[in-house]
Amino acid sequence: MDLQQKIHSKIAERRDEYIDFLKQIVKEPSTTGNELGAQTLMADRLKQSGLDVDVWIPDYDELVKSKFFNPLRDNYEGSPNVVGVLKGASNEGRSVILNGHIDVVPSGEESKWTHHPYSGEVVDGKLYGRGTTDMKGGNISTLIALETVMALGIELKGDVIYESVIEEETGGAGTLAAIQRGYKADVAIIPEPSEMRIFPKQQGSLWFEIEVTGLSAHGGTRYEGVSALEKGWIVFNEIMKLEEKRNAPLRNDPLYKDNPIPIPINIGQFNGGYFPSSVAEKAKIQGRYGVAPGETIEEAKEQFVNMLENLKTIDDWFEKHPATVKWGGIHLPPGGCELDHPMLEILKEKYADVEKKEAVLAGSTWGTDGGLLTQAGGIPSIVFGPGTTSMAHFTDEYVELDKLFKTAEIIALAIIEWCEINSIKK
Amino acid sequence: MDLQQKIHSKIAERRDEYIDFLKQIVKEPSTTGNELGAQTLMADRLKQSGLDVDVWIPDYDELVKSKFFNPLRDNYEGSPNVVGVLKGASNEGRSVILNGHIDVVPSGEESKWTHHPYSGEVVDGKLYGRGTTDMKGGNISTLIALETVMALGIELKGDVIYESVIEEETGGAGTLAAIQRGYKADVAIIPEPSEMRIFPKQQGSLWFEIEVTGLSAHGGTRYEGVSALEKGWIVFNEIMKLEEKRNAPLRNDPLYKDNPIPIPINIGQFNGGYFPSSVAEKAKIQGRYGVAPGETIEEAKEQFVNMLENLKTIDDWFEKHPATVKWGGIHLPPGGCELDHPMLEILKEKYADVEKKEAVLAGSTWGTDGGLLTQAGGIPSIVFGPGTTSMAHFTDEYVELDKLFKTAEIIALAIIEWCEINSIKK
Repeated sequence: MDLQQKIHSKIAERRDEYIDFLKQIVKEPSTTGNELGAQTLMADRLKQSGLDVDVWIPDYDELVKSKFFNPLRDNYEGSPNVVGVLKGASNEGRSVILNGHIDVVPSGEESKWTHHPYSGEVVDGKLYGRGTTDMKGGNISTLIALETVMALGIELKGDVIYESVIEEETGGAGTLAAIQRGYKADVAIIPEPSEMRIFPKQQGSLWFEIEVTGLSAHGGTRYEGVSALEKGWIVFNEIMKLEEKRNAPLRNDPLYKDNPIPIPINIGQFNGGYFPSSVAEKAKIQGRYGVAPGETIEEAKEQFVNMLENLKTIDDWFEKHPATVKWGGIHLPPGGCELDHPMLEILKEKYADVEKKEAVLAGSTWGTDGGLLTQAGGIPSIVFGPGTTSMAHFTDEYVELDKLFKTAEIIALAIIEWCEINSIKK
Repeated sequence: MDLQQKIHSKIAERRDEYIDFLKQIVKEPSTTGNELGAQTLMADRLKQSGLDVDVWIPDYDELVKSKFFNPLRDNYEGSPNVVGVLKGASNEGRSVILNGHIDVVPSGEESKWTHHPYSGEVVDGKLYGRGTTDMKGGNISTLIALETVMALGIELKGDVIYESVIEEETGGAGTLAAIQRGYKADVAIIPEPSEMRIFPKQQGSLWFEIEVTGLSAHGGTRYEGVSALEKGWIVFNEIMKLEEKRNAPLRNDPLYKDNPIPIPINIGQFNGGYFPSSVAEKAKIQGRYGVAPGETIEEAKEQFVNMLENLKTIDDWFEKHPATVKWGGIHLPPGGCELDHPMLEILKEKYADVEKKEAVLAGSTWGTDGGLLTQAGGIPSIVFGPGTTSMAHFTDEYVELDKLFKTAEIIALAIIEWCEINSIKK
């Protein structure tokens, strides 16, 4: 048996055990602030596997020193980070970080789910539940890769650092804390739901909150007021025009050729008014702003602020009542690696070996912790994971188990080639 | 001295006493459910004046039998209605109801008030406080009118029924209960804040709540979802078109000639989405729907529902995901009287006598209990009161005292002419 066959067999042997473990992790509703249960399971597992495990509560006072930090809360009690290290035999070996977040977005209306969002039910080769695709399934695939390398008695030259971090969905504090704690490597793989495509470029994303002001009046004489809802729709439309403008240059990028909106601006929430028969005096527009790979957060913000300032040329009202923006929550810079990075070549090769077809390269449609690894940590980052892209944050989210195990196989092979074999215990 | 001079002198004599009484009433924060203090003052006053006073708790089981009832609560303990009757000398005399609500809307942020909302402070001829204009000031003006008639020893042929009712601001249960208890008259005057204009037509109003459905997706691939916000905006626009269509026929009505939107549809609240970087799957649109004088609630609802059903011809999405409406909260039918109603002539004439100028007739911009009196009670209703229209529901609400006393004078004269003098005690 060659190495690939051995890896394949070893994973196949333990398939049911891994499915059970993924179910356990999915059953923990690890939304922001509620990560403890899932992280305890992860830490225990990494310890059992024989890694050096580090569990710690991210330190607000330390985080706040970084310009990449965007505080959502001011303490992380009950929300530990977990890192497990497989130390390489040589100081010269190339190291790799396997980074994945444990937090999940809220389930939305549970009644709409065919399978309860925290059930982990398996039907037709798909494991269902909130976070299965984004990204607990991915995290299990890198865990499998790492455990399989160890199970085969392979000693690597370089370090493998397995990171199970908190709070990617709401800001990236977990990965930033891991960087600040000193976890560095020559490259990072992040198994976010790329559907087994390889993403050497990952857009960043920012959350914005716009406040629009109107003038209240009785609904029966609504013409005496100014509706913040109507003014809010003007802002809404201008945001959509900005999206169009910002995406135009990316339409010729081969990494985005199949993507109708490479860097979307998603207006996720619009809330305004306080009484049915009063004219709304405030509206709040909240959303997610895609930052282009290669763009800085500062550049992206400037375009957004200019759009808001320009509103007064469209409607006089904004002259004296400007729409204002606050940035909060997600604040992920774009990430990636050079297009000739050797890990990219390795991943493509291993993908072809396992899948018997050429890998698809693309740019990510969302921000990931790869931006922090790249920009705050100086670590080239590649996204490659098994999850179904369209199911992230979706009702009836699932991960395809075959893809999960194939991803594990490819990553195991890639780790071995990247970190190099020092010895194999028989 | 002619009758008008006598009335004027009598009112002037007791001016300070009435201001004190209004202050006492304003100091009672008679929001929905908290009417007892103010109603006790009113009942005691009516008794002292020599009326037959009826104080009772509206009966939910009785109210619920009426199609005009829109329940906000299921019992009225602590919220009595008060009616005082001045019985006329003849069974043939024309009767009149003087109807006013004792409930007030909440004060909003008290810190924004220059004068505390329940202080009843008088500055520069204005008495400040929540409910002064809407409509405790009006209620005092009709009380003054009635007491003045009595103080002058005038015995009327027809009955005068003074109603101090609960819960106009949140549904009309008080007036409906008074109708059910058997209080009927040939005409009703409601001293809502018309700013001494005479409103022979009063629009009704309904509160609506529309739910719009989208399809959630990750914000980074928002093109895979369907935004309930964008769909909601289509609904918003269609509501505005319906408003335009419904108002067109009223634009030639002389009563609405100075009103840019005679029967407004006010969209007061728009709330949708649950997460900045998810596509919104629900949006809720809440507002206030003006019902045209002469229109039934059923007819108005039908137009609204048709508009919603028509959405599918504008956007296929609504075919399988129809926008739905619930009606709740305010549910006031339109009211009014014939334009050749003799009481209307009397009010115009008495207004001219007192004010030395022609009365302004208009249609009300809001619903009042006049709708229930007209449609549930079959009693023609006219709104005529001293309050400042724009101050209703507003911070620093006030009533102008001169207008209050002039209104009292006009109403006293009108009552005497309408009910006719049977005898005068010397």
